[in-house]
Order: sequence, then structure tokens, then C-alpha cells
Amino acid sequence: MTTLAVDCMGGDHGPRVTLAACRQFLQAHPDAHLLLVGAQDQLGGLVHERARVVHASEVVAMDDAVEVALRRKKDSSMRIAIQQVKDGHAQATVSAGNTGALMALARYLLKTVDGIDRPAIAYPMPNAKGGATTVLDLGANVDCTEHHLLQFAVMGSALVSALNHVEAPSVGLLNIGEEEIKGSEVIKKAGELLRSAANSGDLNFYGNVEGNDIFKGTTDIVVCDGFVGNVMLKTSEGLASMIGGFLREEFNRNIVTKLAAIFAYPVLSAFKSRVDYRRYNGAALLGLRGLVFKSHGSADEFAFSQALNRAYDAARNNLLERVQTRIAHARPLLVGSEGEARTMETAAS
Amino acid sequence: MTTLAVDCMGGDHGPRVTLAACRQFLQAHPDAHLLLVGAQDQLGGLVHERARVVHASEVVAMDDAVEVALRRKKDSSMRIAIQQVKDGHAQATVSAGNTGALMALARYLLKTVDGIDRPAIAYPMPNAKGGATTVLDLGANVDCTEHHLLQFAVMGSALVSALNHVEAPSVGLLNIGEEEIKGSEVIKKAGELLRSAANSGDLNFYGNVEGNDIFKGTTDIVVCDGFVGNVMLKTSEGLASMIGGFLREEFNRNIVTKLAAIFAYPVLSAFKSRVDYRRYNGAALLGLRGLVFKSHGSADEFAFSQALNRAYDAARNNLLERVQTRIAHARPLLVGSEGEARTMETAAS
Repeated sequence: MTTLAVDCMGGDHGPRVTLAACRQFLQAHPDAHLLLVGAQDQLGGLVHERARVVHASEVVAMDDAVEVALRRKKDSSMRIAIQQVKDGHAQATVSAGNTGALMALARYLLKTVDGIDRPAIAYPMPNAKGGATTVLDLGANVDCTEHHLLQFAVMGSALVSALNHVEAPSVGLLNIGEEEIKGSEVIKKAGELLRSAANSGDLNFYGNVEGNDIFKGTTDIVVCDGFVGNVMLKTSEGLASMIGGFLREEFNRNIVTKLAAIFAYPVLSAFKSRVDYRRYNGAALLGLRGLVFKSHGSADEFAFSQALNRAYDAARNNLLERVQTRIAHARPLLVGSEGEARTMETAAS
Repeated sequence: MTTLAVDCMGGDHGPRVTLAACRQFLQAHPDAHLLLVGAQDQLGGLVHERARVVHASEVVAMDDAVEVALRRKKDSSMRIAIQQVKDGHAQATVSAGNTGALMALARYLLKTVDGIDRPAIAYPMPNAKGGATTVLDLGANVDCTEHHLLQFAVMGSALVSALNHVEAPSVGLLNIGEEEIKGSEVIKKAGELLRSAANSGDLNFYGNVEGNDIFKGTTDIVVCDGFVGNVMLKTSEGLASMIGGFLREEFNRNIVTKLAAIFAYPVLSAFKSRVDYRRYNGAALLGLRGLVFKSHGSADEFAFSQALNRAYDAARNNLLERVQTRIAHARPLLVGSEGEARTMETAAS
């Protein structure tokens, strides 16, 4: 039996969207159970034998500071949802709320897996091959060492093997050229480390890739630090939105172009569904001792149900164990960063 | 009289494209003169009273290492073209050749402007407002300090004021959030420095921007380090190419969709011209004691002539003096980096 804890209050739309998506999800998965976390009086809309409400009196707002989520709103739907995973009542949780708060709460409540310094956020980006390229980190870590990038590569491999059923997914290191001598010092060292990991059988390392390779689908996974990843993601959203806007404007220009739009409608619909990022909604927070998935804040019913599907697949395919097993296997290569982590702990104690 | 030195051998197509573009350019600008640099026997295709061939016996290949361009091919068309600027025979040069080689040769031959540690590459990216957002640095500098980012901001302001006739163009600092507390240590310090520069009247600093703001056109200029800039540029190219490919595929799917394409043809053409990056071809290498413009390697005749137009406008609008004046004015804020540069020179001597 797989149970998901759903933060029904998070995101731009709250229960109106999350409950509808939960209903869709329950219909699609006859074995799945849901814990609907949030304000009891707002969750009456979904009565189902495999769903149960878990009351939470507070909501983390999209613009709440991390500190507010951590220290003040101790009965938030986001926190209670994560707590369900920690307590073993659910195998994964999904929230469309504030990303920073979700990461901070998840880290605080669940802690990181042994051998992982920092959890990462992994997004699937649609590619020209019709599949998705999984990119991490997308925003959680701004200053990364080569060891962090190796950890991301190992965790990303576990994610893709669990969700896409590829045993040895290929990993690219995001860089400004294919040659090994390119990039910053950290990137060059990360390249060496990833090559060592490939030699010891921990990774299927392809080599350096460039920004355009993400959309070409050159590798299954692309690894980068959170700053670069966030800029890449936002840039892509901005460009896609500009191109979509131009296309709409041109077809809406006058009566003739509107007529053309009617003729072209089936083609434009097919095109739209191919570039529909909602199909890939559901980013994984990796490296925690529990499964947490983040939906886009503006997700609609379809998009949010996709995030639920991804979390469900991850739980059923033992993503948590896969991450732990792979990290344990790569342990000798991660020793540099653990030394660093130990030093920091010693300094703090 | 404005004279451009054109590297006619550079780029994927060489003289076939560059000469055709030069002819177009000479027709459009009755006062302009050109020095056509390259193999004499390949440049006979353009005979014009305002064009003169300057022979160069070698060509820097697109995959030549920087060292080859610098030390071995001393009679390359790229090098001789830059030399024309250094010797005062031309006010600017344009090349579609190897970017790394062009930057290295330009830096070696022309040297940097006082107060500038590292030249930067500035690209105009089309935005939703119908104009272009100038982004720098795009690939020349992978590890940047906050002082480098300030230098980029000042040079970018000079460029946009010269080419777009905006006296105080707005500058955004590329970051992963709008708040001042976001980003890496370097980015936070850069934010402080840019705010100081705004206070002393050296810049029109808007604040932090995110990746999507480039295409929204939130600011005239966006400043970032060369690693992030390169990833952003390549990602955009990859995404645009994927979206364009999907659109073509859907309209080519069968006889019905091909018929729809005929009806939609005028709309699709108008759309295509709006997203046509060729209109913005011509990146500026800023911070050198001479004007150097880089065309995309795959530029066709139209695109290459746009790069010539940009170089011509920059020369006529005194871009070089504008950069020097603005840098001199911002000198007190740049002192940190000059100290660093002096230390490095001392260490090397």
C-alpha cells in the first residue's frame, strides 16, 4: 500500500485545484491512499474511502520567509504533510507551496541521507527526443563544490532509474564547452571526480554538455549548481512565454490571421501539447530521508495530478533506497566532502 | 569617414557570405569604407571604390586552439583585421571566426582600457517589448569578482547609450531572486557595488533580475558572469530550436496540416521574423582599446551585414570614448579590482 501526504493548502490555488487533482489521482490508482493535509473545513470537497483528512490550522504563504515557516507556523499544512512521511504514515509528500520553505522544513524534519551535505532540487525539462532531461540542482544550492556536484549526479541517477526505468542513465556536466579544459575551477574538478565515479562504476558519465544539450536530450541527466540551474530554468520559462506570446499575437492580429488560426487550430493544439510543461510537473527534493515532491505554484488540476503521479511512482519504485544504495556505493569518492562536513560539525559542537 | 576592417575569411561560410554582406553594407552606407582582409585570390568577388583588399595568407580555423591563433598563425585574416584597428586604418573590426581566438588576439594586440581587468562579450537578446536586452558577459570570463561585474555594467551602459541612444540605460544584476539577500557571496557584493555606483551617478541600477526578465525586457542591460551567461545563451538557442522544430514537424505531419500551413503562411512568416535572432547579430567585445565585433559563426549574408551595421554605428557614435569616459568616472569604485590587478602584475614581474 502506497500513501501520499498532500499539502492541500499550498500553491496559488489551494484546495480548489489540489482536491480536484487528488480525486483524479485516486481514480487513476486503485491501490493508492491519500492523506489530505490542511484546514478541515476547506477539505470537505473530497470524500473518498482511500482519502483521509489530517487537520493543520496554518498555511505557509508563498511569500513567507523561511524563518516564519520553520519557527512560527508550527501547525502549517506543509509541515504536517512532511511530518506524515517522517512518522511513516505516508511514503512521500507533495506540495505546491513556497520552495524555500518546503526545502527548509523537509531538511529540518527529515534530515539528509548519510553522505549527502545538501539536498538538491531535480526538474524534468522536456527535450526534442520527446522525453525529459532531468536537471539538478535548480535553486537549492548557490555555491557548490565539486563534491556537491558529484552528489547531485549520483542522486539524479537514482531518480531517473526509479522513474524512467533506465538502469544506468547518462549524466552530463553543464559547462561552457565540451572540452575537459573548459569552465571554472570547480567545474574542472567536478569533471575529474565524475570521471573517477564512472571508472568505479558509480555513474554513467557522458562528459561536459552545454545549455542547448538540455533540450536536445543529449544525456538523461544534467548536473549544475543551483545558481546556474535557476537562471537556466527561469530563462527557459521566459523565452517559451515570449515565443508563445508572439505566436498568439500574430494569429490574433486581424480577421484574416484569425481565420488562419481556425485552419491551423488542430496543428497548433498538437504543438501546444508537445511543449506543455505541465506534463513534467513535479520536482524531486533529493538527498532527504524521505520523499518530497514540489509542484509548480501555479499548477492547475492536470499539472498537480502529474506531480502526485511522480511522487507515487517514486515511492513504489523505492527511490529512497535507490538514493541510499547509490550514495553508499560512491562513498569513497564522497570522502572529501564528508571530511569537510565533519570539520564543520566539530567546529559547531 | 568611418572605415571597418572585415575578417572576410572567418565563420562557417567565409568570403561567399562575408563579401555579399559587405556589398550590401556599402550600398546602405554611402560614407562607409571597408578593408577586406583575407586571401587576395579569394576576395576578387567584390570590386568597389570604397573597398580595398588587405592580404592575409592564413586563416584561424573554427576549432584552432587559442595558442595557434596567437603564436603560430601570425598572418591570419583575423589578426591582420585587428591590426588595422590598432594602426588606425580602421575604427572597428568585424569577424565571424572563433570567439576564443578573436578575444585573445584582440586583447593581445589592442590591450584593455585603463580600469578594465577583463574584456567582456555583450550580446543583444530579443525581448517581448520588441527591442533587445543587452547581456554581458557571455563567455569570456568564467570566474568573476564583484568588481568585474561592475565593470561589465559600466561598459554595457556605454554600449547601449551608443547604439540605442538611451542616455541612462537600466542595468539588472542576474540573480536567483529579486531580494537583495539572494544569491552567492559574489553576487551579493556585486549588488552592493552596483548600488554604490547608482548613488554616485555612474549607473542606472534597477536591482536584481531573474532569467525570465531578459526576455521580458525588464532592463536594458543584464549583467552576469561568463559561465552563467554562456549557459543562458546556449539554453536559449537550444530551446528556440526545439520549439521551432516542433512547430515545423506539426505543420509537416500530413496533407491536412500542410494545407493548414499554407493558410497560416503569412502569420508564420510574421512570427518567424519576430523571433529572428539574425536581426541582432553582432556581439561587442568591450573593454579593449579598439572596437571589435563578433558575428555568429553560422551567419548568413543578412546576419553578417547586421554585425557590420552594429560595428559601424558603434564607431560613428564613439563607443570607445564612451567606455573610457564612463570607466574613468566610475574609477573610485573600481579601485578594489585595480589593486588586485596591480598585485598580479607585480607578482608576474
